[in-house]
Order: sequence, then structure tokens, then C-alpha cells
Amino acid sequence: MKDSQLTVTAYDWVPGFAQGHVRDLRVRWALEEAGFPYDVEVMAQGTQKKPAHLKRQPFGQIPTLEIDGQTMFESGAILWRIAEASAALLPDDAAARDRVLSWVFCALNTLEPPVGMLATLELFVSDKDAAARLRPEIAAAVTGVLERLVVALGDKPHIVGHFTVADIVLTTVLRDVPDDLLADLPSLRAYVDRHTARPAFQTALAGQMTLFAENAAKYERAG
Amino acid sequence: MKDSQLTVTAYDWVPGFAQGHVRDLRVRWALEEAGFPYDVEVMAQGTQKKPAHLKRQPFGQIPTLEIDGQTMFESGAILWRIAEASAALLPDDAAARDRVLSWVFCALNTLEPPVGMLATLELFVSDKDAAARLRPEIAAAVTGVLERLVVALGDKPHIVGHFTVADIVLTTVLRDVPDDLLADLPSLRAYVDRHTARPAFQTALAGQMTLFAENAAKYERAG
Repeated sequence: MKDSQLTVTAYDWVPGFAQGHVRDLRVRWALEEAGFPYDVEVMAQGTQKKPAHLKRQPFGQIPTLEIDGQTMFESGAILWRIAEASAALLPDDAAARDRVLSWVFCALNTLEPPVGMLATLELFVSDKDAAARLRPEIAAAVTGVLERLVVALGDKPHIVGHFTVADIVLTTVLRDVPDDLLADLPSLRAYVDRHTARPAFQTALAGQMTLFAENAAKYERAG
Repeated sequence: MKDSQLTVTAYDWVPGFAQGHVRDLRVRWALEEAGFPYDVEVMAQGTQKKPAHLKRQPFGQIPTLEIDGQTMFESGAILWRIAEASAALLPDDAAARDRVLSWVFCALNTLEPPVGMLATLELFVSDKDAAARLRPEIAAAVTGVLERLVVALGDKPHIVGHFTVADIVLTTVLRDVPDDLLADLPSLRAYVDRHTARPAFQTALAGQMTLFAENAAKYERAG
């Protein structure tokens, strides 16, 4: 994969709440950690639902990763594929590697769904009153899983042994948790800070944000 | 893995709405398709949140899979691990194998979250009025992704080439979609019917349901 032609898709711009949180960030971060060179195909906002993109990404989402002309989709799948090809992202030991696999799916299928439900209530449903009434209960569900994560992490710097792809996925999921829910969980805040301080993360984030800054004038109106 | 000592955890009983839908079903199904012998460790309902289980499954969930004494968790991770070890669940071709990986994550991170949100609204939140008001909008989101899936599936019998682990995950996610949302999507209903007719699925389902029948008297009261 190091010698493959790799192309990530990314938006030229997204609204403010999503900036720094679009999922090509995960893919860029993993590629930076692995040291795999890649190109970025910049897509104008809105074109993700056009036939050309739907043909390679059936749900009109970002990101995709083209590997020597073959397209993969879903950030979790792409991250696992990159990790399989890089000793920087997976442990050598087979049992530890299986634990990393468990945590990758845990981050995306146990932690992210309630976090995403909270975001749906806050940002995407039109009945704001009903959403506000349900928020405390869903927030409690998020807190419930986060408190379990606190116990599992303990005082370890990373979730399994040294830094792995599981830390990339967990960190990006935790970055989407509202601040008030992380306020009383210092070990998780420190975990996020520790991983977002990595040069590879900073390079990935800058790559995404630079595009949005460059294209803001196309989408944003003064005032 | 064929010669490994494999043990799946399963509940002795769950409430009616969850019967036939607990996620050890996925793992049993994959093991049956692969032809890997396995034991079942039956856990009394409630013991999943006790320290002994939390030590191996940090979120107190079912299932886990013990492989020669090492525990994996998250049904998606376990299924991928089984698939890696069985030609019955993955294609030989590398690009097709990557497409299967994309679909496994898609089923769990794009399709299942809105389906799960619908279930949360119906079954788990206490403010039933607020939940009912949000249901149409979340149902529309589910329909939106299902309609994309209809296009991606087309008239193929399986999502990628021959039967793979992606069909196991997709089928089990689609089985959790409320009937009214599948009513107008005959190709998805046929897809579910086609896969649940497989002998390996029927064996897996019977394995789960038999336990619940055997233990019903412990939990259910007449009337």
C-alpha cells in the first residue's frame, strides 16, 4: 500500500459545526501516521449526492479512498485497511491485534451511535422542543458508555499497548462528544489531548481546515 | 481458528422484543457458515453487568468470543475475525475483499445507527410523547439510507459477489428495521428472506431461541 496510488476524497467546504470533524480527517490521520503518500480529490459541497460520486459511494458520503483505482468507503473500513498495511498502526502480537479490532468496532458501533444521536437531536431534527426533552436521557446514555470507557482505559496512555488505529478511531469519536459531557471525565480529556497533539493529527487537521478556509468565500456571506 | 477452542457468550433469556435479535446470533451464524465448532457459555440475564463479565467486555454486552482463552468483543470485530479465517465468508480477490470490508462497516456505522435510534425512541426513552413526535423524521432518515441500499444492491443476490460476511451483517441489521419501513422495498425483503433461509442462519437462530424457551419460566410470570 505504501507504493500504491492513494486518493482521499474531501469537501471543499462544510458548515462551521462540522469543520474539523469530517471523517476524511480519520483517513488523513492514519495515512500520515503510516507515512503513506496520498492525493486529495476535492469535491464541491453538494456534489457528493450526484451520480458520479454515488457510483463509488452508494450513500453519497465522504470520505472514500481510492487504492490503485479501486474505491473503498466507510472511514472505519478504510482505517482498518491502512492499519493492516502499516506496523505503525497495529501491534505485532496476534491477540493484541484482535483487541485493537474489537476497539475499532466498539468505537464505531457502541460509542459513536449515542454520540451521533445527540448530534442528530441538536442539529438535524426540526422539532426542537421534542429534541430538547429527549436530550437529557440520551446524554445519560452517552455518559454511561463513557464511564465504562474510563474504567477500560484506566491510566494507560493508549487503549491497547502502544499507539494503534484504535486510538485514532476513539479519539475522533470522543472529539464529537459535547464538552459538558466530558467535563467530569479528565482521563478522557487527557486522552484526546494526548492524541490530538500528535504531529500526524495536526497535519491531517490542517489539511482539512485549509480547504475550508480557501473556499469559504464561495459559500459564506458576510454577516 | 478451525482448530481453536471457541466459546460464544449468550443470554439465558431476554424480553420478547429482543428474542431472535441478540447479537450472538451474528456470531453463531458466521461460525455455522464457516463450519467452526464452538461452545456457548450461557449467562443469566443481569450478570452481564457484574465485574466478572465487565472484565472481559468493558460495556457489559453480549456477545464475546473466546478464542483459545483470548476474549474478543463487538459482534462486528468478531465477525471480521471469523471471516479472515474462512474462505466461506470472504472472496479470494483482494479488491472484492476490500469491498466486503467497506460493507461490513457500512452496515454497522451508516445503516444501523439510524435503525438503532428508531428502536431507542420506541423502546427505551421514557418521554413517549417526545419520542413519537420525532419518529417520522428518524424513520425518514432510515428510509433514505435503505433507498440507497436498494440501488446499490440492484438485482444481485448478495451485496458483493457470492455470499460473504457482509451479507450476515446487512441481513441482521435489516431484520431490525420496522416492518412498515421495509413494506415498499421488496428487493430488501427478498434479500432478508434469501439469507435467513440459509441452514446456518436457521441453526444459529434456533440456538438462541432454544435457550430463551428453556429459561422462560425463570423470568416470565403468567398473565
